[in-house]
Amino acid sequence: MTGANSIGEGVGRVETRFADISLPSEGFRLECGRSLRQLRIAYETYGRLSPQKDNVVFVCHALSGDAHAAGHHGDPERTRGWWDAMIGPGRGIDTDHYHVICANILGGCKGTTGPSSINSDTGRPYGSSFPPITVWDIGEAHRLLLSHLGINRLAAVIGGSFGGMQVLEWAIRRPDMVSRAVCIASAPRLSAQALAFDVVGRDAITSDPEWRGGDYYDAGRGPVLGLALARKIGHITYLSQEMMERKFGRERMAAPPCGNFSTNFQVESYLDHQGDKFLERFDANSYLYITKAMDEFDIVERYGSLEKAFSMARARMLVAAVSSDWLFPPEQSSLLANAMLRAGRSVAYCVLQAPHGHDAFLVDVSRLSDVIRAFLPWVGVPADHQIGSDRTDRPEFQIIASMIKPGSRVLDLGCGDGELLSFLRKRGAADTMGVDIDIDSVIAVIDRGHDVFQADIDAGLAAMPDRSYDYAVLSETLPLLRRPRFVLSEMLRVAREGIISFPNTGSWRHRAAFLFSGRVPVPRGRIAEAWYDSGILHSFSWADFVDLCRRDGIKIVQTVCLPTCAAGRLLLGMGRQNLGAEHILVRVTK
Amino acid sequence: MTGANSIGEGVGRVETRFADISLPSEGFRLECGRSLRQLRIAYETYGRLSPQKDNVVFVCHALSGDAHAAGHHGDPERTRGWWDAMIGPGRGIDTDHYHVICANILGGCKGTTGPSSINSDTGRPYGSSFPPITVWDIGEAHRLLLSHLGINRLAAVIGGSFGGMQVLEWAIRRPDMVSRAVCIASAPRLSAQALAFDVVGRDAITSDPEWRGGDYYDAGRGPVLGLALARKIGHITYLSQEMMERKFGRERMAAPPCGNFSTNFQVESYLDHQGDKFLERFDANSYLYITKAMDEFDIVERYGSLEKAFSMARARMLVAAVSSDWLFPPEQSSLLANAMLRAGRSVAYCVLQAPHGHDAFLVDVSRLSDVIRAFLPWVGVPADHQIGSDRTDRPEFQIIASMIKPGSRVLDLGCGDGELLSFLRKRGAADTMGVDIDIDSVIAVIDRGHDVFQADIDAGLAAMPDRSYDYAVLSETLPLLRRPRFVLSEMLRVAREGIISFPNTGSWRHRAAFLFSGRVPVPRGRIAEAWYDSGILHSFSWADFVDLCRRDGIKIVQTVCLPTCAAGRLLLGMGRQNLGAEHILVRVTK
Repeated sequence: MTGANSIGEGVGRVETRFADISLPSEGFRLECGRSLRQLRIAYETYGRLSPQKDNVVFVCHALSGDAHAAGHHGDPERTRGWWDAMIGPGRGIDTDHYHVICANILGGCKGTTGPSSINSDTGRPYGSSFPPITVWDIGEAHRLLLSHLGINRLAAVIGGSFGGMQVLEWAIRRPDMVSRAVCIASAPRLSAQALAFDVVGRDAITSDPEWRGGDYYDAGRGPVLGLALARKIGHITYLSQEMMERKFGRERMAAPPCGNFSTNFQVESYLDHQGDKFLERFDANSYLYITKAMDEFDIVERYGSLEKAFSMARARMLVAAVSSDWLFPPEQSSLLANAMLRAGRSVAYCVLQAPHGHDAFLVDVSRLSDVIRAFLPWVGVPADHQIGSDRTDRPEFQIIASMIKPGSRVLDLGCGDGELLSFLRKRGAADTMGVDIDIDSVIAVIDRGHDVFQADIDAGLAAMPDRSYDYAVLSETLPLLRRPRFVLSEMLRVAREGIISFPNTGSWRHRAAFLFSGRVPVPRGRIAEAWYDSGILHSFSWADFVDLCRRDGIKIVQTVCLPTCAAGRLLLGMGRQNLGAEHILVRVTK
Repeated sequence: MTGANSIGEGVGRVETRFADISLPSEGFRLECGRSLRQLRIAYETYGRLSPQKDNVVFVCHALSGDAHAAGHHGDPERTRGWWDAMIGPGRGIDTDHYHVICANILGGCKGTTGPSSINSDTGRPYGSSFPPITVWDIGEAHRLLLSHLGINRLAAVIGGSFGGMQVLEWAIRRPDMVSRAVCIASAPRLSAQALAFDVVGRDAITSDPEWRGGDYYDAGRGPVLGLALARKIGHITYLSQEMMERKFGRERMAAPPCGNFSTNFQVESYLDHQGDKFLERFDANSYLYITKAMDEFDIVERYGSLEKAFSMARARMLVAAVSSDWLFPPEQSSLLANAMLRAGRSVAYCVLQAPHGHDAFLVDVSRLSDVIRAFLPWVGVPADHQIGSDRTDRPEFQIIASMIKPGSRVLDLGCGDGELLSFLRKRGAADTMGVDIDIDSVIAVIDRGHDVFQADIDAGLAAMPDRSYDYAVLSETLPLLRRPRFVLSEMLRVAREGIISFPNTGSWRHRAAFLFSGRVPVPRGRIAEAWYDSGILHSFSWADFVDLCRRDGIKIVQTVCLPTCAAGRLLLGMGRQNLGAEHILVRVTK
């Protein structure tokens, strides 16, 4: 239950609740074929549930998280929820709008049924008799909780890391329940390297003689050395190299090391501390069961391909990666987003610049909050209001709109804040997608409700399948590219037609100015003018452009020239485009 | 001893020898203050020692290596040395020229005195009574071996990873003994992340109850679970993420997993195999002692700064990094090379593009061999023959040479294969240094005997201290840069004067051509001509250049204009540089 609601204070004091799910006589059936006779789920909620129950955001926690995502349990200093900075009034997941639910996962040890729970059949902890679980089982348990709470539709499901995997399963397997899905710093399946770290972590636990095959609850301290070791390995992978260097470097502790082969490096004492802290709050068997579920999670294996999987989904998707995350690297998020795109999903993809590594989604949420806030629907605001204001004062926009047939799919390469896309949407474009390298632009485009991909156009559009758009637009962007020829060819691979808007360096003004001043012409645009910091890497004339089109077999279907003076109009009237046009818009195809 | 010498076969059959070093009565004194009463060193040699004993290359092995670097021990399939691909007739370290020595390190377990050796005082293995060792101790033991073999000067000392750290100590502490030093995939000290992995690895061993405080030799199998775990962690860090993905991905073994929490992923069985293999050949205490020595190695801490350390060295240095190495990342090698430079050392720095990660220096040696071959002195060939041929047919070279005072230090930014540097060296330049982004160019420059840095000039020259050169040259390079203004300012920070050679886009030919053709001028140079793939990112005229100099307070000290026709000469005669010059060379300062 939400507590104090004052801005800046978060959701205040909260408490964890426990739901004993009523099960059919066969119990809670797991993917492995076995069943659990009881199912208890620990959960917390924040923000008010709307009367229509249409404002629920379900938050999926990561490997070692729990139901306590926001607020505090009495002591605001020591018992903050793990995502308190993200969830609350005015925060990324705004509890003034949303009713947020977070629940401990199946197999966990923080109140939801897991290997350390008492098996009522025996009156003793499950231990090694706990059945293997999957990400799907985890989601199903949570679905039963929602049912129990009378909720059957989610405005959004959101999670990072292992939580992101749960989000993916929700979107794929329960398409009718999920409107929006946010998958942060996650992957369709673990990389070989991440698998390897998990393998070694589990090894450390099962090699510990105190593990006793999993039945250690009644005997001693349990595999504390092994569990601490596993956690230390994990913690190395959660931080980027840069962050570890910044935090610890080779600083040493004042106290001398206690063992022969200990060091007094701060990083050693940090890891020791993390290992010890973990022992207080986590169960070794839970660690084994959950990491195994994570390792076995594989969308490709389960559904045949990512594309097949996401063709089952219906939610709008947001995929966010962290630049310095090497455990779930951005390439994996990009794979996800690309497959969603190919499956015809509506998707926004961005890469948050943060030095923290994988942990960034927990510890550096300010930018991520902006992204999530922009992506979540505005509760109570009509959807088409979200597309943004219409500026009709740019003649280029009008011309581009006139080149595009209503109902078409439009891709804007170098889309900036999405103003053109919003304009085209108003003029009848059905699907709108932007690509830009800048995160602020990407957030603005998400906020306007378009699909968007954060990417460097010069690196190509390998993500996008052939002919996936009717039109691709390069508005004022071509001169800024390092590889204009390559990008043109990519543009005409992914779209049926290309629309390119560029200043014509060959106009009589530029020629005359160059002749008399000897200064190489830098066309005016939205950019500065000096040759050395205009941002322009390729300045070209209409004749140069035509030449490239001829060499590469690009057909120019339509040309619109913008003169800015009487002389220009006269020259255009004489058919002298290269002399008369100050600015040119062309529609091309291949 | 070298065996069969036929090309392609390597050094053939070899054997490990053992030297019992005669010690003074106080024994072999270690840095920790304690002494060893006996010192035995295992070593191998390949190639013939020259009568002058001036062709010795000493190879330093890494953490788990040994004296057996090349050839085989009888079975060519199963007993190849760890660097056989690098050492042999016609190979990177050419045994037709060099006498190569490799010795097991102190504290090791492959024949050199270490914790598993018998302490003659007690008749039992040292175990926990073995004293702590340092990289310096390891080098000193090897120096005693060389003495024992009658060798007191090394043509080169070469090593990768932990071997590279030994190389650095050799160069710093025994400057009189080392002519060239090659440090591969190494660092001045471990990063916090690498420290963290070592900490966890040692933890795994010392947490194993079978370790028994280090005195396990007479009791059972020893800490095999812990040692295997440590090795597995190590192996993850030796491979790049990409290589692990390529090698294993999520492929599964046919056989089912044997334990509850085992998987059948190939990566798990690979790690299991690596762990098991290691148990057969390595001692857990050696692992502890050596990794501790590696962790404590810190040139900055020991000598005050890298610069101070390298100002004690005299050897020519080659620092080579591997692009995909995340355990000893290229930034650390670059730190080393920069400090050597600041300390006035002669240094070549390159980054080998390889997907393998840290292990690349062991498994993908073809490019590394080229680099090392180019760097090692040509035995028996006069040094000045190495500078390369002199081409006097390029007027630009003559002009640049005329701008440079004899005896000066010259930096060539975008140096290509070093032809200009060799030309300037012949014309009296004292120190010559090239910077280029291309590895083939860098190898050619190393081969010509110049200092060289592999780097992207557009990223700046942060490596180089202010005013470290008399002249910096940008010959035909400025138009190819993304950030010409920034690079010019960097150039005039690191050098007293800059010499820039560029085509003048403002010449009457270009202006006339643009006026009539409407094609944006692309100056001819060593590059292709079409605007979209000329490589030129900034095309500028003399007037444009002068404008930038004025804005940034750059003084033009000397200008040489190259006309290519009578009209150009006439215009130059009239003082119309921007119209008359086809090509301009300027000397500038700030």
